[in-house]
Amino acid sequence: MHPVAANADLSLVQGVIAQGLEEVTRRFEEQLRSDLPPVQRLVSHIENYRGKMLRPTLVLACGLASLPSLRRSVTPTLLASHITCAAVCEMIHMATLVHDDVLDEADIRRRGQTVNRLHGNEAAVILGDYLLASAYHLCSQLDSQKVALLVAHTSMTLCAGELLQLSHRNDLSLDETTYFEIVDRKTASLVGLSCRLGAQCSDADEDTAARFERFGRKLGIAFQIQDDLLDLTGQTSTLGKPANQDVSAGKLTLPMIHHLACIPPARRAESLLLLESATRSSRSGTGPEAFARLRHSLDSSSSIAHARQTAERLIAEGKTELAQIPDSTARSLLLTMADAVITRTF
Amino acid sequence: MHPVAANADLSLVQGVIAQGLEEVTRRFEEQLRSDLPPVQRLVSHIENYRGKMLRPTLVLACGLASLPSLRRSVTPTLLASHITCAAVCEMIHMATLVHDDVLDEADIRRRGQTVNRLHGNEAAVILGDYLLASAYHLCSQLDSQKVALLVAHTSMTLCAGELLQLSHRNDLSLDETTYFEIVDRKTASLVGLSCRLGAQCSDADEDTAARFERFGRKLGIAFQIQDDLLDLTGQTSTLGKPANQDVSAGKLTLPMIHHLACIPPARRAESLLLLESATRSSRSGTGPEAFARLRHSLDSSSSIAHARQTAERLIAEGKTELAQIPDSTARSLLLTMADAVITRTF
Repeated sequence: MHPVAANADLSLVQGVIAQGLEEVTRRFEEQLRSDLPPVQRLVSHIENYRGKMLRPTLVLACGLASLPSLRRSVTPTLLASHITCAAVCEMIHMATLVHDDVLDEADIRRRGQTVNRLHGNEAAVILGDYLLASAYHLCSQLDSQKVALLVAHTSMTLCAGELLQLSHRNDLSLDETTYFEIVDRKTASLVGLSCRLGAQCSDADEDTAARFERFGRKLGIAFQIQDDLLDLTGQTSTLGKPANQDVSAGKLTLPMIHHLACIPPARRAESLLLLESATRSSRSGTGPEAFARLRHSLDSSSSIAHARQTAERLIAEGKTELAQIPDSTARSLLLTMADAVITRTF
Repeated sequence: MHPVAANADLSLVQGVIAQGLEEVTRRFEEQLRSDLPPVQRLVSHIENYRGKMLRPTLVLACGLASLPSLRRSVTPTLLASHITCAAVCEMIHMATLVHDDVLDEADIRRRGQTVNRLHGNEAAVILGDYLLASAYHLCSQLDSQKVALLVAHTSMTLCAGELLQLSHRNDLSLDETTYFEIVDRKTASLVGLSCRLGAQCSDADEDTAARFERFGRKLGIAFQIQDDLLDLTGQTSTLGKPANQDVSAGKLTLPMIHHLACIPPARRAESLLLLESATRSSRSGTGPEAFARLRHSLDSSSSIAHARQTAERLIAEGKTELAQIPDSTARSLLLTMADAVITRTF
């Protein structure tokens, strides 16, 4: 295709997705609307809590990329089911964010105050439940048992991943296998589902849907590793939330796990001591200083590079999954999105 | 029917329900089972957290009472869908209990330590989410869009009721209208749904299903009023949980609302002061003494009697709903259960 035509095509597809995301937002808001003013006030707060819209964007882009070629070659069109699935995935994601903030006792999320900070933990817990119930209600409107089972099963998996992570809170001997087990369930499952649902709504066969799901799962894990890296190396001002939250919450991330596994025993003992005094639960009051020394120690090992390479490998593997999907502008967009997962700085 | 035959029939129906409840418990456990040991440990804790099984019992009894007369007259038999719906309703109820305990910072529930006390608030929040997701997954196994929409919609209503209640925490001017609005959404909705689902699984027509739902809603409100009364007048040892929790959590219940609305202005001012110092947030340290004086003041008004009469009226109205349902042993059992809601002491 001529480069000018390709660019025109790209902006067409981007336009379809942007318009789709607006419909997703409308669907999202309509579904949550309540006749009770105190409920509606909380719900409105959720609405300006919205972030990257990664999951709905993936539903829509995977939906376009797996439309039958006839439809794809004319004007790419999204179906009502794509919009619904995108809103469902975003709603489940939002519910986990609202509940995570209760768990983390977070004050700031995406440059705004968190629900728990503004309205108390009680409101945040029930608002998260309201989001979950709304997601299932919206999902049931599709009248597809297959989709309903997938959505509910993924929610169970996601919670199981969070519980597994919680059981390893402050576990300084967490290994890479368990780390990946947690991330796969907690993050990759819903990203993978978003991609699968996009394809399924376009009537893709099971092989293609599974391919899109694997693409999403790889992206999801890489996304989490990039989050780990940003938490260590990013700036609060760019991230929109405080940096270095993981260590202080007692969560070992990939760079730290690799670091502890690879350094000689003497340095390992030192790093463990530093880690302990960098956690929020530490009473030594040496948190920031311990964190700086830990960061220095990490820089001198290859652990940050290891995490970066792992994320890059996952993105490459994810892109390979799409190699057998017929070429289209939507597919190119997905490949670009995959790269952006690990180049983003926020 | 001869009394001996009637008794034999009653124990037959009770046996069918008892066996059904065992199946519900198995279904409940199977659905929650996890391959991850830390998740399974938490799930096992939920299992001995189980209480009165009011909602599953209502699903089964309403199911039997609305079976086509041919089937009812032979041996009453429950269908697999009754068992599934009963487990779904109990799972949603359990999720709200687990999350309520986070909200109330409760230490004891049904004579056992609460999940949040044993495993922290974080685990309790996610375990509640896991229960909700499992309930929807189980519900989707039925492949009935109608049931899925009802279950999800009721969950939304229930959360909205809890949020409404929360917005009136420490509101000493809460009126009866708002109180009933809260109770209807928070408690009656799920009890009503349990009765409706029982009937629907027996292929009852919409008129009959709606009748069973209204019966359940009345029962649900009466149940809550009885809880209010027990919280004021019951003993910790009989209740299995601390008494006087409502006032200390800043929740006005029906007797207290009536009391404040009916007493002369001077006594009202005194009661309001006593209420304020009886709440947990009070720093005066006069909680127990204030509570005793409040109790004395309540006893001298007709407010406890008013609440009792309201609950009795609701039970009578609920029973009237079933007057047009064909007579059966299961229906008699439902009428007895209705009476038990307001005669129970725990």
